[in-house]
Amino acid sequence: MTDIAKVCNDILEFIDQHDNYLITTHLSADGDAYGSALAMAYFLESKSKQFTIVFHDQEKEEKYDYLWGWSLINPYCDEKDYHFDAAIIVDVPSRSRIGNPAQLLPSANHCIKIDHHPEEDELAILNLVDTAASSTCQLVYEIISRSDVEISHQLATLLFSGIMYDTGRFSFSNTRARDFEIAAHLTSLKVNPSEVANHLFFNNNVESFKIIGYGLSNIETFLNGKVCVIFLPYSVMQKAGQLDIEELTNYSLAVKGVEVGLFIRQVEPDFIKVSFRSKGKVDVNKVAKVFGGGGHVHAAGCRTNGDPLELRDKIIQEIEKQLP
Amino acid sequence: MTDIAKVCNDILEFIDQHDNYLITTHLSADGDAYGSALAMAYFLESKSKQFTIVFHDQEKEEKYDYLWGWSLINPYCDEKDYHFDAAIIVDVPSRSRIGNPAQLLPSANHCIKIDHHPEEDELAILNLVDTAASSTCQLVYEIISRSDVEISHQLATLLFSGIMYDTGRFSFSNTRARDFEIAAHLTSLKVNPSEVANHLFFNNNVESFKIIGYGLSNIETFLNGKVCVIFLPYSVMQKAGQLDIEELTNYSLAVKGVEVGLFIRQVEPDFIKVSFRSKGKVDVNKVAKVFGGGGHVHAAGCRTNGDPLELRDKIIQEIEKQLP
Repeated sequence: MTDIAKVCNDILEFIDQHDNYLITTHLSADGDAYGSALAMAYFLESKSKQFTIVFHDQEKEEKYDYLWGWSLINPYCDEKDYHFDAAIIVDVPSRSRIGNPAQLLPSANHCIKIDHHPEEDELAILNLVDTAASSTCQLVYEIISRSDVEISHQLATLLFSGIMYDTGRFSFSNTRARDFEIAAHLTSLKVNPSEVANHLFFNNNVESFKIIGYGLSNIETFLNGKVCVIFLPYSVMQKAGQLDIEELTNYSLAVKGVEVGLFIRQVEPDFIKVSFRSKGKVDVNKVAKVFGGGGHVHAAGCRTNGDPLELRDKIIQEIEKQLP
Repeated sequence: MTDIAKVCNDILEFIDQHDNYLITTHLSADGDAYGSALAMAYFLESKSKQFTIVFHDQEKEEKYDYLWGWSLINPYCDEKDYHFDAAIIVDVPSRSRIGNPAQLLPSANHCIKIDHHPEEDELAILNLVDTAASSTCQLVYEIISRSDVEISHQLATLLFSGIMYDTGRFSFSNTRARDFEIAAHLTSLKVNPSEVANHLFFNNNVESFKIIGYGLSNIETFLNGKVCVIFLPYSVMQKAGQLDIEELTNYSLAVKGVEVGLFIRQVEPDFIKVSFRSKGKVDVNKVAKVFGGGGHVHAAGCRTNGDPLELRDKIIQEIEKQLP
C-alpha cells in the first residue's frame, strides 16, 4: 500500500470513529478551500455524522453559491458555544492562517488535516499533506474515492471546482496527469466543466472590467522585464469595493518573458494586499514569507502595512535574489 | 466497431496507400489548426511519406513556433508548381474557408478531411467529422492512437495544444470527459500543461495589455446585459499592429448574465473583424453566417465591410431573434 493509500484509509477509519466535527479552512477562502471543505461536509453528511463548517470570513463569496453546502458555512461567532469532538482542517498550512476558527480546534489528536501547502504547524494527528498535489480537492478525491460513498453530481462538482480553481483551468505548473484523470472521472459523472468555469472565472461584473482595464493600462515591468507589476492605488480600490478583480493576478504573469507577476492593491491608505505568481524559476512562497505571507512555489500572497511603492521595491529586491 | 473506429481505420489505410500529400487548413489558422495540421505532418513523417504543408496565411503566428514542424509550414505561392497525389484537410468545413490552398486540392477521392465543424462542402472521400468533438486535434488523436506510430513528446504537445486551445483551457462548453482522458494520457507522455498554456495564453506583450485595457474600460452591454460588446476603433487598431489582443474575445463573454460576447475590431476604416462567443443558448455559428462567417455553436467569427457600429447593431438584432 502506498503512503497516500495508507493515510487515506487511516482517515476513513478516523472518520468512522468520531462524530460532531468542525470543518474549517484558511482566511479569504478560495475555490479550493470552498470545494474541499464542502466536499468533506458532503462526505460526513453521507456518513450521517454531525458537522459544523466555520470559516473566518464574515462574508461568504457569492460566486461559490452554486456549490452544495454553501449555505451551511458559518462565519466564526464570538458568542456561540461551540463544542466539537473532532476537526477536519483543509487547505491551510498553519494555525495563524485559519484565523478565528483556530480557537475552536480540539487537541491535535482529534484533528485531521488535508492540504497541499508546505506544512508549517502540526495541527493534526493524521495528515494527508502532499505539496505535489494540485489542490486539496485532489487529495479529498483520493480519500473519498477509496470510501463507500458514491460520488454524486454535487460531490463531483465540489471536487472538480477546487481542482479547476487551483490549477487555473489546468494551466498552472501544478497541473499533472492525475488532475486530468480525476477530471475525466468527474466529468463522466455529469460535471459540466464550462458551467463550473463560468461560475469560477467568467462571472464578472461590467464595472469590475473598468477596474481591470485600469490595471492593465498601467502595467509596469522591472528587472529587464522579468517582473511585471499591476498596481491599484487606494483611489481605484475604493471604486472596486467588493468587485472581483482577482483576474489581474493571473494577468500579471501573462506577459512574455516575465518570471514573476505581482498584483498589488492598496486596500486602505495603510494596508496593502499582494498576490504573487511565478512561472517556476522563482519560489514566490519564499518571497511572500519575507513579508509575513505564504502559499506555494508558483502562487502566494501577503497582507501588510506601509507604503505600496516602497513595498513593491522591497519585493522586487527579494525576487532579484532568486534570479540568476 | 464504432463508426469513429471504422473511419479511423479507413483513414490509416488510405494514408498507407498514398504518398506526396498536401496538408492544409483554414484561413487565420488558430491553435487547433496548427496542432492538427502539424500532428498529421508528424504522422506522415513517421510513415516516411512525402508532404507539403500549405496555409493561406502569408504570416505564420510566432506564438506557435514551439510546435514541431512550425518551420515546415509554407504560405500559398502563386508561382510554385505544386503537385500532390493526395490531401489531408483539417479543421475546416468548406472550400472558401481554406483560401488559396483550395486551388491545390486533388479531386475529392484523393482527399481526407478531419474536422469538428458542421460540414459545408464535400471535399473528401473519407471524412472524420464529429461536431461533438472539442477539437480537430481530439480527432487526430483518435486516428493516431489507433496506428503503430508511437506518440512522442513532440506529437503529444501538438495534440494537447489543439485541445487546450479549442476548449479554452478546458472551459468552453465543448469540453468533455474524453478531452480530459486524452489530456491525462498526453500529460503522462511528458507534455507540460503550463508550458503549453504559457505559449498559447500567457505570452502577451506589455503593449498589448494597454490595448486590452482600453477595450475593457470601454465595454458595453445590450439586450438587458445578455450581449456584451468590446469594440476597438481603427485609431486603436492602428496602434495594435500585430499585437495579440485576442484574449478580449474571451473577456467579452466573461460577464455575469451575458449570453453572447462580441469582440469587434475595425481593422481598416472599411474592414471589420468580429469574434462571437456564446455560453450555449445562442448558436453564434448561425449568427456569424448571416454576415458571411461561421464556426461553432459556442465560438464563431466573420470579416466584413461597412460601418462597425451599424454592423454591431445588426448583429445584436440577429442575436435577439434567438433569445427568448
